This record gives sequence, structure tokens and C-alpha cells, in this order.
Amino acid sequence: MQEPSLLEALTFDGAGLIPAIAVDHASDSVLMVAWMNRSAVTQTVDTGIAHYFSRSRQKLWKKGESSGHTQEVISIHLDCDGDVLLLRVKQTGGIACHTGRVSCFYRQLVDGRWTETEPPIKDPAEIYPNE
Amino acid sequence: MQEPSLLEALTFDGAGLIPAIAVDHASDSVLMVAWMNRSAVTQTVDTGIAHYFSRSRQKLWKKGESSGHTQEVISIHLDCDGDVLLLRVKQTGGIACHTGRVSCFYRQLVDGRWTETEPPIKDPAEIYPNE
Repeated sequence: MQEPSLLEALTFDGAGLIPAIAVDHASDSVLMVAWMNRSAVTQTVDTGIAHYFSRSRQKLWKKGESSGHTQEVISIHLDCDGDVLLLRVKQTGGIACHTGRVSCFYRQLVDGRWTETEPPIKDPAEIYPNE
Repeated sequence: MQEPSLLEALTFDGAGLIPAIAVDHASDSVLMVAWMNRSAVTQTVDTGIAHYFSRSRQKLWKKGESSGHTQEVISIHLDCDGDVLLLRVKQTGGIACHTGRVSCFYRQLVDGRWTETEPPIKDPAEIYPNE
């Protein structure tokens, strides 16, 4: 039996999207989660640079197009149900989060409250000077 | 300013769900992604054992209730937008996937095709003898 090709194995939701986890290929830490539509998946595979679909702006989005914090894709993985992608990436600038942090998961539940556990390593005003 | 409490910081989707990534606390590898409703979040926090909401069965689900492969929660993290949870867990049996593999992300895109990169470590027929 031939293994399924790129889009054929993927289950997109009602909005035509699939979640994608970006993991730092060197540290194994989870950097962020974003969504992809079919075009984002094929653009990512074709260019080797992570592309997502912005739900708020309803458009294809090359990660890092404003910030410069692009993601070079090292490998792409798929889960058992075909409804979540995982990208191992080389994160330019070492910053994945728009808040200037390494990872978007910088809050931890401590005594019932969400507590910041990681400071920004760059001021967002410096990352996005025109916004 | 007081930090937000458990449910107050979370953004649930139109179906009342939020995705949750389970990461092995020792190896840092991503084990699986499932969904939680409000009850699954509070049950997980209250018991220290991962609970999810099954979209196919439309019910609260204690991970491992059939397989015995429960997840002891070590810490819970939240992303910048408040719309993805990340659980660091101790995975009982070292198997998170219903296919008998350590991780659900056992397929990798190789030359445009999804190729299995990790074999099952236990036969699913042994894990679910009554199904």
C-alpha cells in the first residue's frame, strides 16, 4: 500500500483549517501553535519556511513577515488522526512569540492563577516598529 | 494587577473547546493533542490527572480510562492568546497513542509522503481487549 500524499492524509476542520505545533528542533520545546489551511500547508512544504493562516486577519501569513522571526522547517510530522501537524523548526532570532518571548507558552498555572514564568527577551516595540 | 484565575484566562472556541498539548515531562516530546471543555479543565486541575473532551463521543474522557495509560499532570501552561493549553505529564506505560505508540506524531513527511517513523511498542488488541 502506498503511503498517503501530503494533503490526502490531513483532516481539516469545518473552516478548512488544521492546527500546527511548532517545536524548536534543537531544544524540543514547544514554541507556538497556529493554524494552516491547504495553501499554508503546501506553501510551507514548497518553500521550507513556515506559513500559517491567520484566523483574525483571514489570510495566509508567512511567520516572521513583519518581525523577521521566520521559521525554517526541519521536518513535518502528523498525528494518528491526521488532524494535527507538528513542525520541527529552526527559529530565527530565537523568538517565536509576538510578545518577544522564546515561546508562546510563558504562563503556568500556580496556585490556581496564571503566572508568567518567562520574561520577554526583546521589546515588542522593537520587533514591530511600524505597528 | 492580580493574575487571572483558571478559566478566566482561557478562550474556548465556538464549541466550547480548547486544544491541549500533552508533553512528556522527562523527554520533552509532544505525546498528543486533545480537546478540553470547561469541565475537562477543572477536572484535570482538581484531580491532577488529564481529562479531555472527546469530540467523537461528545463526552468527558479521563485519558487512560480504558487503556490504563493515564497521564499524571506535572504542570499546566497557557499560550499568549489564551487559546491553547500545554500539559507536562508523566505518561503511564510510556504509551500515549491508541495505536500503541509512545506519541501520536509517528508519521513524518518524507519525499511528499507520510511515512511511519515509530513502531507500536504494544499491540492495540492487548491495550483494548474488550473493544
